[in-house]
Amino acid sequence: MGHDMLMLGVDAGGTSTRAVLTNAGGACLGYGVGGRGNPISAGPERAADGVLEAVQGAVASAGCAVGDIAVIAAAMAGQRASGAGADRLRDRLTAAGFTGRLAFESDLLATYFSGTAEEFGYAIVSGTGASVIRISGGRIDVASDGLGWLLGDRGSGFWIGRRIARAVVQDLDATGPETALTRGVLDHLGIPSESTRGDGRSVMLERIVDALYARPPIELASLAPLAFATEGDPVAERILRRAGEHLADSLIAVLTGPGPLVAGGGVLSRPGAVRDAFMRRLGAAAVGLDLRPVVDGVIGAGVLALRAGGVPTTDETLATLTATLARFR
Amino acid sequence: MGHDMLMLGVDAGGTSTRAVLTNAGGACLGYGVGGRGNPISAGPERAADGVLEAVQGAVASAGCAVGDIAVIAAAMAGQRASGAGADRLRDRLTAAGFTGRLAFESDLLATYFSGTAEEFGYAIVSGTGASVIRISGGRIDVASDGLGWLLGDRGSGFWIGRRIARAVVQDLDATGPETALTRGVLDHLGIPSESTRGDGRSVMLERIVDALYARPPIELASLAPLAFATEGDPVAERILRRAGEHLADSLIAVLTGPGPLVAGGGVLSRPGAVRDAFMRRLGAAAVGLDLRPVVDGVIGAGVLALRAGGVPTTDETLATLTATLARFR
Repeated sequence: MGHDMLMLGVDAGGTSTRAVLTNAGGACLGYGVGGRGNPISAGPERAADGVLEAVQGAVASAGCAVGDIAVIAAAMAGQRASGAGADRLRDRLTAAGFTGRLAFESDLLATYFSGTAEEFGYAIVSGTGASVIRISGGRIDVASDGLGWLLGDRGSGFWIGRRIARAVVQDLDATGPETALTRGVLDHLGIPSESTRGDGRSVMLERIVDALYARPPIELASLAPLAFATEGDPVAERILRRAGEHLADSLIAVLTGPGPLVAGGGVLSRPGAVRDAFMRRLGAAAVGLDLRPVVDGVIGAGVLALRAGGVPTTDETLATLTATLARFR
Repeated sequence: MGHDMLMLGVDAGGTSTRAVLTNAGGACLGYGVGGRGNPISAGPERAADGVLEAVQGAVASAGCAVGDIAVIAAAMAGQRASGAGADRLRDRLTAAGFTGRLAFESDLLATYFSGTAEEFGYAIVSGTGASVIRISGGRIDVASDGLGWLLGDRGSGFWIGRRIARAVVQDLDATGPETALTRGVLDHLGIPSESTRGDGRSVMLERIVDALYARPPIELASLAPLAFATEGDPVAERILRRAGEHLADSLIAVLTGPGPLVAGGGVLSRPGAVRDAFMRRLGAAAVGLDLRPVVDGVIGAGVLALRAGGVPTTDETLATLTATLARFR
């Protein structure tokens, strides 16, 4: 192993994909972005397209070729080393000249190593979904929540969006308090205000219901920003507070000692109601936790590629990768 | 209008359809059952099949023909007098010889008139979904909830089933209390007990999650009977109590005075935890409400057919229809 050995980390997400090319010293040599990279949500073919696009962008910016890469670590939700998604990606990389080793990793672990090089600690991600993991010996030890929109993901963007939608329909059918969120959701859905009623119901309510059921359920997550934007509204504040409490409860379920707490996803990343409620709920349990927000998992995917290539990773490696990647984006 | 004028009421449901044939005196002359009759859930073609089957069964048992019917009232959820479902049904009835008038009615109104002939009162239905209506002048005046599984239906079979599923996954990932529901759900899904873990999670938990996401979300309603069957379990009891409270809140939102309260659907029909919590939550508001459980909406569909045919309906008409229908089923 020398400094000329090339490793590539891929952070394959539901909406976009990022790839970072590093040498064994942890210096970023290239960076690329691509489209949707998760085979579960985008399908094997489209996901492989997204990953390839990011990989080729990274090698092009470094002035080398896919065939020069020794190890690729592909981090994605529901990672599987076998199955249609993995097979399709392996085939496409081989066709592009890749002859090295391909490792599949958890997107949560990539989030974790984007914020720390410690072998013990925690990652919490609240984006569209919500998950917590405890890491021990550099691998996932215990997971909490991450159970998807129908059964869990408490405190996620979907969870917040669904609560918003429910608060608005309850405002309009008078089973819940009035809320400024109603105006926001009507605008978001392009539904004009009107007072007409039919079959015992507000026509606006019928239109909101029709519009929301016409989309896949998961798209309720797109309403979440309305809660953050509707400052001072008691209904919105209660939703954000409950989200923070749920996220804290998911963390508390796996908490066994002090360590870094890497936070990914949009919900906990900004200071405000969710994070305040999260810290308040943690209370004394927060002592010894070092909260480190990260924007995505691409640095950690690079760290996982280095580790897969047998390179020991330290705080210094992480600092080098972080600083050198910053020049590319 | 004479006693030889025939009217037919159809109670078209998501899983089966019932039809009752009456004369203008409210005497049941024939009764038939058919398959799924709701065009929204079953599709226009299959729903028309279900309704035709019930209609033909009813006329056959009365020894007459579809062409002899003067008025048909078809009660179904999301009733529409236009659209593919209505058009297909009208075509099929015409092809079967029907030359009379076809009226589309709300399934909730059919539930209401199955329990009372009063022009003012309330109906509450909690089956797979949950809805409340206030009736004034014999028509729907105000509706509450009935917003579907994603946005509302609080206290419905789906709501109970989803709470059960969430309680079980939280039991298995240690974010919630232990519950006897876990054993019930594992058995229901045919998943064997085992203690293996992978990727920080119980393998049983992964199997439950995979099994539940592999089905349409609405099928969570099939878990609801487990809460009623898991007597003495605090988690199950809390779910049933909350269901009763939610149903009471939906009723309270439209309550303006005393009247009959007709209750349809399986959740409130049996005495026990849901109904106890429902009555407790209503408290003083329950004074003047006369709770009348009904098994389905076919009697009310018959009443709606009589009303559509210009026949005034009274307590006596309802009693006649109820007593004469009983001979047919």
